[in-house]
Amino acid sequence: MKKTKIILDCDPGHDDAIAILLAGRHPAIDLLGITTVAGNQTLDKITTNALHVCEYLNLDIPVYRGMSLPLVREQVVADQVHGETGLDGPVFGPLKTETQQEHAVQYIIRTLMASDKDIVLVPIGPLTNIAMAMRLEPNIIPKIQEIVMMGGAYGAGNFTPSAEFNFFADPEAAHVVFTSGAKLTMMGLDLTNQTICTQDIIDRMEAIGNKAGKLFGDIMRFTLKSQQEAFGLEAGPVHDVTCIAYLIAPELFTTQDMHVQIDINRGPCYGRSVCDENNSLGLPANCKVGKGIQLSAFWDMVAEGVKRYED
Amino acid sequence: MKKTKIILDCDPGHDDAIAILLAGRHPAIDLLGITTVAGNQTLDKITTNALHVCEYLNLDIPVYRGMSLPLVREQVVADQVHGETGLDGPVFGPLKTETQQEHAVQYIIRTLMASDKDIVLVPIGPLTNIAMAMRLEPNIIPKIQEIVMMGGAYGAGNFTPSAEFNFFADPEAAHVVFTSGAKLTMMGLDLTNQTICTQDIIDRMEAIGNKAGKLFGDIMRFTLKSQQEAFGLEAGPVHDVTCIAYLIAPELFTTQDMHVQIDINRGPCYGRSVCDENNSLGLPANCKVGKGIQLSAFWDMVAEGVKRYED
Amino acid sequence: MKKTKIILDCDPGHDDAIAILLAGRHPAIDLLGITTVAGNQTLDKITTNALHVCEYLNLDIPVYRGMSLPLVREQVVADQVHGETGLDGPVFGPLKTETQQEHAVQYIIRTLMASDKDIVLVPIGPLTNIAMAMRLEPNIIPKIQEIVMMGGAYGAGNFTPSAEFNFFADPEAAHVVFTSGAKLTMMGLDLTNQTICTQDIIDRMEAIGNKAGKLFGDIMRFTLKSQQEAFGLEAGPVHDVTCIAYLIAPELFTTQDMHVQIDINRGPCYGRSVCDENNSLGLPANCKVGKGIQLSAFWDMVAEGVKRYED
Amino acid sequence: MKKTKIILDCDPGHDDAIAILLAGRHPAIDLLGITTVAGNQTLDKITTNALHVCEYLNLDIPVYRGMSLPLVREQVVADQVHGETGLDGPVFGPLKTETQQEHAVQYIIRTLMASDKDIVLVPIGPLTNIAMAMRLEPNIIPKIQEIVMMGGAYGAGNFTPSAEFNFFADPEAAHVVFTSGAKLTMMGLDLTNQTICTQDIIDRMEAIGNKAGKLFGDIMRFTLKSQQEAFGLEAGPVHDVTCIAYLIAPELFTTQDMHVQIDINRGPCYGRSVCDENNSLGLPANCKVGKGIQLSAFWDMVAEGVKRYED
Repeated sequence: MKKTKIILDCDPGHDDAIAILLAGRHPAIDLLGITTVAGNQTLDKITTNALHVCEYLNLDIPVYRGMSLPLVREQVVADQVHGETGLDGPVFGPLKTETQQEHAVQYIIRTLMASDKDIVLVPIGPLTNIAMAMRLEPNIIPKIQEIVMMGGAYGAGNFTPSAEFNFFADPEAAHVVFTSGAKLTMMGLDLTNQTICTQDIIDRMEAIGNKAGKLFGDIMRFTLKSQQEAFGLEAGPVHDVTCIAYLIAPELFTTQDMHVQIDINRGPCYGRSVCDENNSLGLPANCKVGKGIQLSAFWDMVAEGVKRYED
Repeated sequence: MKKTKIILDCDPGHDDAIAILLAGRHPAIDLLGITTVAGNQTLDKITTNALHVCEYLNLDIPVYRGMSLPLVREQVVADQVHGETGLDGPVFGPLKTETQQEHAVQYIIRTLMASDKDIVLVPIGPLTNIAMAMRLEPNIIPKIQEIVMMGGAYGAGNFTPSAEFNFFADPEAAHVVFTSGAKLTMMGLDLTNQTICTQDIIDRMEAIGNKAGKLFGDIMRFTLKSQQEAFGLEAGPVHDVTCIAYLIAPELFTTQDMHVQIDINRGPCYGRSVCDENNSLGLPANCKVGKGIQLSAFWDMVAEGVKRYED
Repeated sequence: MKKTKIILDCDPGHDDAIAILLAGRHPAIDLLGITTVAGNQTLDKITTNALHVCEYLNLDIPVYRGMSLPLVREQVVADQVHGETGLDGPVFGPLKTETQQEHAVQYIIRTLMASDKDIVLVPIGPLTNIAMAMRLEPNIIPKIQEIVMMGGAYGAGNFTPSAEFNFFADPEAAHVVFTSGAKLTMMGLDLTNQTICTQDIIDRMEAIGNKAGKLFGDIMRFTLKSQQEAFGLEAGPVHDVTCIAYLIAPELFTTQDMHVQIDINRGPCYGRSVCDENNSLGLPANCKVGKGIQLSAFWDMVAEGVKRYED
Repeated sequence: MKKTKIILDCDPGHDDAIAILLAGRHPAIDLLGITTVAGNQTLDKITTNALHVCEYLNLDIPVYRGMSLPLVREQVVADQVHGETGLDGPVFGPLKTETQQEHAVQYIIRTLMASDKDIVLVPIGPLTNIAMAMRLEPNIIPKIQEIVMMGGAYGAGNFTPSAEFNFFADPEAAHVVFTSGAKLTMMGLDLTNQTICTQDIIDRMEAIGNKAGKLFGDIMRFTLKSQQEAFGLEAGPVHDVTCIAYLIAPELFTTQDMHVQIDINRGPCYGRSVCDENNSLGLPANCKVGKGIQLSAFWDMVAEGVKRYED
């Protein structure tokens, strides 16, 4: 099986952790490195979480610290969803590993410049690292095979009525990425909100009986609880996991090419991904936008991913 | 049957004409007056259309010319949907009636001030007349029983990816109305797009065999054709008619109370009705927003409305 | 001497009152009517002030109540400059006169439509009445001889670093006026701040010994005191008076034709009059902007104005 | 004499070149490095110009290539002022030197982190490099002794009516710098426009008879000509030189502490430095803003600077 080389740019984050779990051992994915970015929580917290998840799963993947602040705006975090640590729920032992010395933005630039247009960037947090890399070294843009990101929405947002959290947390970075000319695929809330992880799914993963299954359970039980308590919802989606699933099995997804523009005006739509679903502007599409997903096959894939961890 | 007194504020416009048709003879509606506002086409054109429709249907309802320009922004019209006249399709004879001398805005103010909080405003074009009246005489606001309007969307827009035409044509007026404190009900695209008028519905209305049925057919055949040609759609909705239907039979509709804010920043979301569907801002609701409609009963109501015209 | 017919649109206001005083008896001015607009204080307060000033000076000029709220934005007043009443300082007896029944906006429309392009509008408060009249009846625009207004600045603002109070209080109205095509002359802070009224000028006016001189003193002593206390300034300017002075003796003024645009974005420059002093945009001028004034002749004119009141 | 260590961040540019000339040999200045940034022209062109100027003047100062694009906005250049090369006028031989390998942003970060809070950043082009360095490594901010920059205006702009070129070319970068908490001194157009370099000043510098004097003449004759032809002005200012002069002899300058905010709304004031000269907002000052300069002493300093070059 041909592996897709990816750099996973994340802010773990509950669904980020499951994305690492799925990508870490999948035969279709060559996870070159993990880069971290402030988002769901501060950079220190989510970088620690990334290391913990890799360590717990015995994944030997280099982790690079990235941007601690958005490109222009003041920082916001999503602690009401991800808790004080950014990954409340699982309890890890003392941290034994550490991040690489190189800055995530430099790592992205260096790796892309040395590549043969065969690397997919998978940003599942705010787009700060990607935008910074594009501005510091514009020559990376033609080197990017594709950017498959979690973020945005063409329907309602989650952090504001208009905006999804990742894009709201750094709208100017999203603007840079969406005007870059790179090949873009966006998994927005319209798609990711379909991947609600209910108790029976948690039970299924825990029943596998290994450490990965336990981690899945510890993580998603917190999400289940926080979504119920905070929003009165049945459970929470595993947004970020869809990007990995799309790279493994794009045939499970329906998408639509759209022109997408980010609203960087500081009004009630700040950070909104304005997706021209009906092509009312007549502008050329710059993004493939996820619309539908075959859920049963998706959860099968996640279960297979959990089973790949031996103990 | 207790009649609801209404002032119908419109810019005919194809669906506007059907709204006049339905309101004009319905026993539950006391149509006090029709006010016109530049929107689908220029004020002169749509005012002429309003007079033609009333004349053709033998409706003796006073028509008042209103605002020819938006509150602040430069004018836009929707000629790609409604054609050169604003009501392309039906052919009328020479106009015999004329508008009242009083300006629509003055008529609205005078009528409301003399009323007993028993009048519903039904704006189905841009909100310019209503906003002007509210600013010229703020004391009308506590006199308004309710404003039932067609406009906005919590999903995709139609004139831009973000904005519905009526609100895009005068976002500042919509802002004035939505911050006025008046009781508001909004039939946005999310609801009105469900009322697609296909060939079989046209056939049904024409089969009634009277002048009103013929008018329905002449109007909606043009819409059918223009929607197919311009957008490749099966047919076009009768947006504005939903407001009249809601006043006659609210039980056919599902609605949700939401906080709604109009984006008046001149970016890609200019004119968007930001509807906090999930109450992510935690602000008090200022508007009842239409979500669902019982379509079969709706078209029955329209057919009954057509039949009320004798010849 | 040929008289210039004017409608004075004001929000008295200290300098507004002096403008009424100067215009009320000047042989070069035919003061047709006074229209009021919410600005320095609420509409009720400043309308009462306008009546008081006319009554005190035995000026038989019709006063029309105008707009109580700005076109779009939320209301702001300048009570830190003009005090609780809007004209703190002078003490008037019980009010014996009252306003006309007609709304100021209707009065402006009716008077202009019946005119022979020989009326100058002199708005010295927010531009709400003028903008409303232009939108309610666009046909007045070619009927306006000129609009000579107090407002704006090409240097620093006073209410914010960027914006002068009159324009900040209704930026959207200013936008309507500046894009209307009417002939415009703007006396902004750059010019009006030169007209500081110090103690010796107050003494000079009071020494005239009549009621008008006493009114001048009562008004400007308050301004002197409030400017000293609030801002540590030597005294305050008589901004609004420059518009009347310009109509009487334009030769006392230097002006420059500029392209002027109003910033209606709700950022730090909301309400700024962007005056292209150096024509860096290369756009055609739409406004004559006041730059310099012969101060000594100006104060002589004011003193002559005070002397015209007999007792 | 104690030397002030500086990093000169520039986009030569005519006045930039004179700033290099003055800084390069002055006993009060320790010019650690030159960093380049796209601005007056594209990065390639202005970096070549920086190398040429150093080479021509036998200045052995490391030059680092910086940002080729603004942080967020689309690129603008000032070719109407600085010509096709960005430094039209002087003719240089083939380039023998080259830039350092390290990126300017990395050089700024590395140098500041290793410093003892004794380095002044002197950005005289768009603030892109500085903002990028602050975001990539926020820990540099407390390491900065001061930022003495050319940019902005509290009066009129030059590139637009509201904005000065350096800030207009990257408003978001300026926003990052002005909200960073670093100690800021801003030489805006209000001050720098006073430093007009007329023919007699050119004659004086050329009369010194060395290569530096010839370079001064070749550069400023082009500016004189382009300002006359493009804007009908007598001559052009040497904006950027004021920053170096201020570091050498701050006693020649009058300044005022102000609160300064950058307008990042994309309206007519995009890129404006909103300087609260009269403290109308009551916010704490975050910048020392240049107001006056002793011109005669300034030109003497420049002449001394020219004389320091031996041949």
